[in-house]
Amino acid sequence: MKPPLFSSREFKQSDTEICVKNVKFGGKRIVIIAGPCTVVDKQELFETASQISKSKAAMLRGGAFKTRTSPRDFQGLGSTALKLLHEASRAYNLPIVTEITDFRDVDLIEKYADMIQIGARNMQNTALLKAVGESKLPVLLKRGFGNTVSELLSAADYILAQGNKNVVLCERGIRSFENSTRFSLDILAIPVIKTMSHLPLIVDPSHAAGNRGLVISASKAAIAAGADGLLIEVTSHPDTALVDGDQTLTTDQFQSLMEQLEVLIPAIGREV
Amino acid sequence: MKPPLFSSREFKQSDTEICVKNVKFGGKRIVIIAGPCTVVDKQELFETASQISKSKAAMLRGGAFKTRTSPRDFQGLGSTALKLLHEASRAYNLPIVTEITDFRDVDLIEKYADMIQIGARNMQNTALLKAVGESKLPVLLKRGFGNTVSELLSAADYILAQGNKNVVLCERGIRSFENSTRFSLDILAIPVIKTMSHLPLIVDPSHAAGNRGLVISASKAAIAAGADGLLIEVTSHPDTALVDGDQTLTTDQFQSLMEQLEVLIPAIGREV
Amino acid sequence: MKPPLFSSREFKQSDTEICVKNVKFGGKRIVIIAGPCTVVDKQELFETASQISKSKAAMLRGGAFKTRTSPRDFQGLGSTALKLLHEASRAYNLPIVTEITDFRDVDLIEKYADMIQIGARNMQNTALLKAVGESKLPVLLKRGFGNTVSELLSAADYILAQGNKNVVLCERGIRSFENSTRFSLDILAIPVIKTMSHLPLIVDPSHAAGNRGLVISASKAAIAAGADGLLIEVTSHPDTALVDGDQTLTTDQFQSLMEQLEVLIPAIGREV
Amino acid sequence: MKPPLFSSREFKQSDTEICVKNVKFGGKRIVIIAGPCTVVDKQELFETASQISKSKAAMLRGGAFKTRTSPRDFQGLGSTALKLLHEASRAYNLPIVTEITDFRDVDLIEKYADMIQIGARNMQNTALLKAVGESKLPVLLKRGFGNTVSELLSAADYILAQGNKNVVLCERGIRSFENSTRFSLDILAIPVIKTMSHLPLIVDPSHAAGNRGLVISASKAAIAAGADGLLIEVTSHPDTALVDGDQTLTTDQFQSLMEQLEVLIPAIGREV
Repeated sequence: MKPPLFSSREFKQSDTEICVKNVKFGGKRIVIIAGPCTVVDKQELFETASQISKSKAAMLRGGAFKTRTSPRDFQGLGSTALKLLHEASRAYNLPIVTEITDFRDVDLIEKYADMIQIGARNMQNTALLKAVGESKLPVLLKRGFGNTVSELLSAADYILAQGNKNVVLCERGIRSFENSTRFSLDILAIPVIKTMSHLPLIVDPSHAAGNRGLVISASKAAIAAGADGLLIEVTSHPDTALVDGDQTLTTDQFQSLMEQLEVLIPAIGREV
Repeated sequence: MKPPLFSSREFKQSDTEICVKNVKFGGKRIVIIAGPCTVVDKQELFETASQISKSKAAMLRGGAFKTRTSPRDFQGLGSTALKLLHEASRAYNLPIVTEITDFRDVDLIEKYADMIQIGARNMQNTALLKAVGESKLPVLLKRGFGNTVSELLSAADYILAQGNKNVVLCERGIRSFENSTRFSLDILAIPVIKTMSHLPLIVDPSHAAGNRGLVISASKAAIAAGADGLLIEVTSHPDTALVDGDQTLTTDQFQSLMEQLEVLIPAIGREV
Repeated sequence: MKPPLFSSREFKQSDTEICVKNVKFGGKRIVIIAGPCTVVDKQELFETASQISKSKAAMLRGGAFKTRTSPRDFQGLGSTALKLLHEASRAYNLPIVTEITDFRDVDLIEKYADMIQIGARNMQNTALLKAVGESKLPVLLKRGFGNTVSELLSAADYILAQGNKNVVLCERGIRSFENSTRFSLDILAIPVIKTMSHLPLIVDPSHAAGNRGLVISASKAAIAAGADGLLIEVTSHPDTALVDGDQTLTTDQFQSLMEQLEVLIPAIGREV
Repeated sequence: MKPPLFSSREFKQSDTEICVKNVKFGGKRIVIIAGPCTVVDKQELFETASQISKSKAAMLRGGAFKTRTSPRDFQGLGSTALKLLHEASRAYNLPIVTEITDFRDVDLIEKYADMIQIGARNMQNTALLKAVGESKLPVLLKRGFGNTVSELLSAADYILAQGNKNVVLCERGIRSFENSTRFSLDILAIPVIKTMSHLPLIVDPSHAAGNRGLVISASKAAIAAGADGLLIEVTSHPDTALVDGDQTLTTDQFQSLMEQLEVLIPAIGREV
């Protein structure tokens, strides 16, 4: 018989809490991470960071390296973006999470960010999983859109097995035949994963929906279903976004979402 | 250019409210329908009806005719079940919704029930849709597990086109590759349908989940996402259910769900 | 333990052969059924029947009653179409298969056609399955696009259990996330069904592909995978088709397909 | 307007032929690649290579580095396996294709193998795609099981854009709701890809089926649909396979498949 996965409740029964600086995932408090899909402009980043900070987001997200479907799509500003994120982090006291696409960038990301994200398209890139498993930074591991819940937990094990115990899982929508939304947010995966695993779990409603009109509903549903947090695309400049503009909330819409969550979250027994 | 569907917002902009006796779908109040999957026993039905009535369910559900995958599966008690439902309805003041599988049963169902349900497997059974379109009873139309949102609205049009304007839609999970749950509850379909259609929309978390442990999370998520109500399998005798026992809440679990919803529903601006 | 399904190899080990007049399904010979999606015009029907007869099709298909997604889509000419099919059948010596959508039409279809088709959208319409189970005509049962192979065999059992032993199965594509084709033809279902069931199995490449350019490849693949026949949309008037025009072969394209099959079929040990 | 993808017919109209030593992909001749899923034993590898060579396979496949779902699954013998493959290649005059999972292994694989394979789980690992794009070896790029045809062509562009013009595509099954097979072989993707792209396309029926009983049917269907070759798991020691034993043909079964293909391939106008 195989021993239980490190990510499983069989291996560790109690909920794991993971700290990214002063932010704790998996506790009573819901963690909201917000920011632009991709960092393209200092002014946009700082304005967005300033606004989401006022709206009580806990962390700032922003892409420096992007895994895009086509090589002709914009691939991110790289280290320039990392430095801007770092500056914004200090200016607004928001820890940073940013995506890694090449394991040679681990050192660079460790220098500027507080949490490393593995994107959906790299969920089974085992070389990358092992590399972040050796990093000292906590990892945000997104579920692949073609992967099962069970495969997500196995992917987490590639990281945990290297000694990095700080893995936060993220549901971000799977592929189905339904074509009115970009992906199908697998809401039942939230209670399923919470039953199977002790790791914290957040939800990315922006990529699942692909349409900003749906993000507020999806966010509230995710929290009501038991998610420990949200990863939301927000920008102060929605019309000039180079990547995924359609699904990015404006800072005003984000403010409205946060106001709704401030009522909803206590009603399900959690804290803002 | 095709004229807009009768079920679409293009045809009718304002939300439609549909009354089943004293119960109104599509208003501010959330409608909870509960009861056993299939009526098999008078004592079970009455005990369940009594308990859900105390827990403030608005309507009683119960199967008399079932569309089962195999002809050897139990197909329901037919008119005997309808009469029991009718008695329970009067005893506990709960309007009844029950499924139709053969259009020759319309008259019989009109005699005993208050709302006719079209099951997922019959969503594109156009002869049945037309028949209930000629009934005086309101219709609960469930989305097929292999059908798109757009096809659900077209199916509603088969009913609306016959003159029956009282159609309530129901999302109950779709098929995807994920196999940890019986179906994937399409939570994004809730805001999508509310945008596309003026008809009320409820959610069946029981069939989607296929597992009672997930039903409470799914119910809360559906309400948070904007559903107008829930259709939940509940029984006082969970261990003797002939059909779908694994996904049926006990009356105690239902009571606990209702207590949670009593806190959640006001927090999203609706009424219990 | 449940007894085996009537459709299963456990119930009957040897291949079942089913005759529709002089045409035998499930033997060494491959059965090609061709014709327009829907009968709309006598001249088109007779020209098409004449051409496919010359190209050695074994049977003529044509829709009189259609299950359409929307009530505003053309629903077929009904009994007028049945009479035209009957005439064409006698003129060109081609047995007829036509779809049933309402069980009140069984007698009418028995009068004019030689085989009754249950469409994909009605695969789990149990009232209709039972009704054709009482008919004397052989049944062509199409797999629902949201249904598993196992559910197809259970649906066949609704017919077989009523005493009608003449059921031919039909794979016609399932829904998946891939959007470059209308459906995903489930080619592996062919050997899977042949292993699980003793019933003959044909393939409808036209509805799966949704594009006539793909039909020839799909037809050859289906035969190579072990299908007992094909159901193909063909018309002499492709540009005036009211339904599914994009996926309908011209009679010239059909002639070309038949010439390719005449070489392919012997190479896999079957007969044309 | 975006310029056309390098992999598209818009960019290059005529079929591209790609040579791996004396083996040509994309010409009239069908290329059969066979061998064990993973190299675990010299005797097994040499016996298998000897047998598939006698059965006229054109190339030898064998895993040295494996992308496995869980870190506790066997990950391959690495350079030891590469050396064994190289020896077997020389002994039986069969060029080698082997999978890469970490771009630091490009040099090692270039030393011992003739073609580099990108597995389904790495189809959108852009760092790996770019690295093999700089290699001198031809690349076999497998479609991800959660990826569209269009994404496969974009992934090919990551390689082509780096200057490596020698990319062979491979369909290997996608995820759907059907659970009687491990994946759903997307047979329509074959004519779709041949229409959209000038690159050669082969099919892996073994991983799609997940069951050796289905591999022969799937192989014949793929060739009939227009594939330029097959990638098949074969072993002389089926009962001791550490990975994917259920789907691996025995050398006798492979011999039987090759005999069937020798009749089928000329019947569709290609050469063995």
